[in-house]
Amino acid sequence: MKGSPTLILNEQKAKSNIKKMATKARMNNIDFRPHFKTHQSSEISNWFKDEGVDRITCSSVKMAKYFADQGWNDITIAFPANALEFETIQELASKINLHLIFEDQDVCSLFNQKLKAKIGAFITIDNDYGRTGIHILNKKRIVKLVNHIESCENIELKGFLTHTGHSYKCRGKDEIMSLHHSSLKNLQWLKDEYPNLTLSIGDTPTCSVADSFGPADEIRPGNFIFYDLMQWQIGSCDINEIAVIMRCPIVSKHPSRNELVIYGGAVHFSKDSILDASNKKIFGQLINQNSGELIEGATITRLSQEHGVIHLPTHQFENFNVGDLVNIIPIHSCLTANLMKEYETSDGRIIKMMPYI
Amino acid sequence: MKGSPTLILNEQKAKSNIKKMATKARMNNIDFRPHFKTHQSSEISNWFKDEGVDRITCSSVKMAKYFADQGWNDITIAFPANALEFETIQELASKINLHLIFEDQDVCSLFNQKLKAKIGAFITIDNDYGRTGIHILNKKRIVKLVNHIESCENIELKGFLTHTGHSYKCRGKDEIMSLHHSSLKNLQWLKDEYPNLTLSIGDTPTCSVADSFGPADEIRPGNFIFYDLMQWQIGSCDINEIAVIMRCPIVSKHPSRNELVIYGGAVHFSKDSILDASNKKIFGQLINQNSGELIEGATITRLSQEHGVIHLPTHQFENFNVGDLVNIIPIHSCLTANLMKEYETSDGRIIKMMPYI
Repeated sequence: MKGSPTLILNEQKAKSNIKKMATKARMNNIDFRPHFKTHQSSEISNWFKDEGVDRITCSSVKMAKYFADQGWNDITIAFPANALEFETIQELASKINLHLIFEDQDVCSLFNQKLKAKIGAFITIDNDYGRTGIHILNKKRIVKLVNHIESCENIELKGFLTHTGHSYKCRGKDEIMSLHHSSLKNLQWLKDEYPNLTLSIGDTPTCSVADSFGPADEIRPGNFIFYDLMQWQIGSCDINEIAVIMRCPIVSKHPSRNELVIYGGAVHFSKDSILDASNKKIFGQLINQNSGELIEGATITRLSQEHGVIHLPTHQFENFNVGDLVNIIPIHSCLTANLMKEYETSDGRIIKMMPYI
Repeated sequence: MKGSPTLILNEQKAKSNIKKMATKARMNNIDFRPHFKTHQSSEISNWFKDEGVDRITCSSVKMAKYFADQGWNDITIAFPANALEFETIQELASKINLHLIFEDQDVCSLFNQKLKAKIGAFITIDNDYGRTGIHILNKKRIVKLVNHIESCENIELKGFLTHTGHSYKCRGKDEIMSLHHSSLKNLQWLKDEYPNLTLSIGDTPTCSVADSFGPADEIRPGNFIFYDLMQWQIGSCDINEIAVIMRCPIVSKHPSRNELVIYGGAVHFSKDSILDASNKKIFGQLINQNSGELIEGATITRLSQEHGVIHLPTHQFENFNVGDLVNIIPIHSCLTANLMKEYETSDGRIIKMMPYI
């Protein structure tokens, strides 16, 4: 709606981010299976097709269904196979090349018994992130699950899948590269033991910073298409590579506190936050409309449902007035896009995302 | 979608919460203008009509338009009047009794010049919350704005509006009541000076706990229809008054860490959090399916886009298995509902919310 918070997408930057990552995968002769949870848009998915992408990653069955309906026919759902969604999974498996991830023998057996169409399977490996998967050092359990899946006639073992989510704790390229090397070293035995299976990795920090991927056969980054303030803080991107900004109206100005109030709250940005250089929790940062550079110290310090409170350095205060629109880099573009549900391109075109329900 | 995170609404509890608040307003002979930002649903809005409610509060122009289309014709938009949304506001003002909130003389003048239909106005008062409004002690500026609005022919001054949002920092009924009394005491001069203008207050903690409202003529709580873990921690409600829970499938189990992974992440719960008794950040807490009581120490400790990680006390671990559904009290029901976009009632009926865009 006119005059309300808007998610502005710089199409050229997003396309350039896609091209860089696709080129990097091609140079390494590995597969590029981008994660579509960040953009969630059929139109944007075509930009990947233009770079030769023919396989994708989704984070939910619902999302896989949406992209299958848009013509994508090789999809990995990088979320633990959930037997309670079996019907939709069965339907999808009958139409496209669908791959699920497993870490539990009983869940595999359950799917194997009920499936009427074949699916591909990746074994989820926990490479020290500590969320899902079998720990990379638990060789015994990994081998057991490999053998079990190989005995399942409706499930074809494709390989191993891991997400180095702890790269989000890195600060700077050196820390990212150090984690990247140690992660690949941990994974090497899988490739040595199972040279014909695919080793799939992928998180935006390591995929953005690294130039080579050791034993990996496939990368699955997602956020890199837009980046955001969190990725910039981690060291994954330059500020001018960030492809999305929030444009919000100033609705109130408080000189006594050096604060602006904008129309733009938790239902637009999400409540994801980072700590700034002075260890203060922030929910976004203003950029200069002309230079595109961050305005130092001009950050969203509080968010309620529809309001955002911006603290400004004193010398900046007079540059902003009620009725102005400000440009803000969001903390976490995946969650902001998920809330905003559409993009406005720099030339004013609207790009829709998948419906909410 | 079947087998995915579901927002379960206990219709009886929600109706009972509405009835209690409506009765309280009636007993005090003050107006009840509930905030609809929490439930955002046409069907649920009818439950308020059943209690005699004929005036409401919205947090955005978009929301006011939605409820006006559903037949509500007395709406206060409790968000600073935003000149960039003038066209939609003008359209609404020509159809219903629309009230906007103002704190800035220039914004009032702008609206007054352009309006073709009359609107009502409330002056936003900052009663120490520090978000929007003129500070309650700044009598000079308040009086000046009163006089200015009274000179605007298209804007009818209705009264003063304040939100004691800092009641969210209270812990326990004593702290809430203490803040309630001091807040009302601050506001008293407005009533003494302008006995014919409406004094509108309203936040869920004070409206839930207090039995009387001093000089106030109107209350505008919103969250009280559902409550949530944050309100329970503040002391606004008992655990059995919370009317919404998230039902999520367990998709992975990690005995070495006493952790479950559920299908239910930041795009379902929101990333709003509270600190638990041991000062640990949590994003939700499990309840016993039978008793409805909180399970001590069973909390969501991490959320990514679609995953939630639950930490369990050791003696509880064997009670939960992959494929089970768990019931979780969300931290902030307004943001969770806003993400989920529909409710499932205890008897399986779906209640829709307003569309996202």
